[in-house]
Amino acid sequence: MKENSIPKATAKRLPLYYRYLRILNDAGKTKVSSTELSEAVQVDSATIRRDFSYFGELGKRGYGYDVESLMQFFAKTLSDDEMTNVALVGVGNLGSALLKYKFHQSNSIRVSAAFDVNSDIVGRIVDGIPVYPMSDMVEQIAIQRIEIAILTVPASNAQDVVNDLVDSGIKGILNFTPARISAPANVLIQNVDLTNELQTLIYFLHSNESLNPSSEEE
Amino acid sequence: MKENSIPKATAKRLPLYYRYLRILNDAGKTKVSSTELSEAVQVDSATIRRDFSYFGELGKRGYGYDVESLMQFFAKTLSDDEMTNVALVGVGNLGSALLKYKFHQSNSIRVSAAFDVNSDIVGRIVDGIPVYPMSDMVEQIAIQRIEIAILTVPASNAQDVVNDLVDSGIKGILNFTPARISAPANVLIQNVDLTNELQTLIYFLHSNESLNPSSEEE
Repeated sequence: MKENSIPKATAKRLPLYYRYLRILNDAGKTKVSSTELSEAVQVDSATIRRDFSYFGELGKRGYGYDVESLMQFFAKTLSDDEMTNVALVGVGNLGSALLKYKFHQSNSIRVSAAFDVNSDIVGRIVDGIPVYPMSDMVEQIAIQRIEIAILTVPASNAQDVVNDLVDSGIKGILNFTPARISAPANVLIQNVDLTNELQTLIYFLHSNESLNPSSEEE
Repeated sequence: MKENSIPKATAKRLPLYYRYLRILNDAGKTKVSSTELSEAVQVDSATIRRDFSYFGELGKRGYGYDVESLMQFFAKTLSDDEMTNVALVGVGNLGSALLKYKFHQSNSIRVSAAFDVNSDIVGRIVDGIPVYPMSDMVEQIAIQRIEIAILTVPASNAQDVVNDLVDSGIKGILNFTPARISAPANVLIQNVDLTNELQTLIYFLHSNESLNPSSEEE
């Protein structure tokens, strides 16, 4: 089966599996059972088996998984065996926090350039990361071979910045703005909308309560 | 059909629909066609119709939707017609940014209490939000009738804090730590793992490239 056909939900779990395998490997463990894996990543065994089945034979039945080879398989699948430079556009509150954020599970993802309009920070190095003026975006993205950008600009500027990023050759955008942005079909957009996350959680909470009124007692 | 049976993907789109309807209503618009809605929220019409069908008859065929009544329906469905107090635990870099974050789409979600161990900020008001010591957590969560907590503590403390939150009566946790936390079945956990988001985006980017090598030329 082609990797391309794997479901998005499966793809989103791959980093979880990978992270746990790295922890095991660092601890010197060589084998892991599907039950252990299931408990650690909080995904049921049947789902794990189905996820793994998209990639062919990753373990032997009744034997468990070989930690190192499985870890290396996921490292390769997730491109964590090669350095990925990422740009961050918009060094406001959230952008600054993300510059400080350790992309802890990954050895290989690095925010290598930030961009902003604020002359107080442009030209400076913030948390080890150079902050360039917006006018340097096309050039730096080309020089640093950046394909992915984190978008933390005000929503009102989001689409304009996205257009510039697309012109710069960016292929993937992690959109933290509430704006629904458009880009050509070959540019992937992943939305992380924090208000949506909270509203969805509130929605599930309330629909759950009406389902299990007894749950309020615990 | 019961609201409880709606798919998670549908639930996640409800805030999008709601936000756009509020924008239209603020602009004085009274009707919206399914095509307009589709373009604005970037969800195809068939998906919108299926999403809406879970809630019964929300519009008339060929007539479009009534903006105000649909907006009010979603406000109620998302509990945006009542105030929801939210706690934030861990006022580090990301936590501080989230205290400043405007939960812009919502009139009704408010971070009303933050908690931290750092004596430099405990007892102070940060961005309008009081920061309490951890020892006040049970009391404040009860007094303020808080059911939802945003978790931005270090991963190593995450499970301990979750246990305390559950003891305090919290029913939903938006987990920004990379830790996979456990809680009783009646407590909802929504994970927002920023490294995962980036790794998934990188994965899709690379599997896409192998699917459409021509996309590199654009």
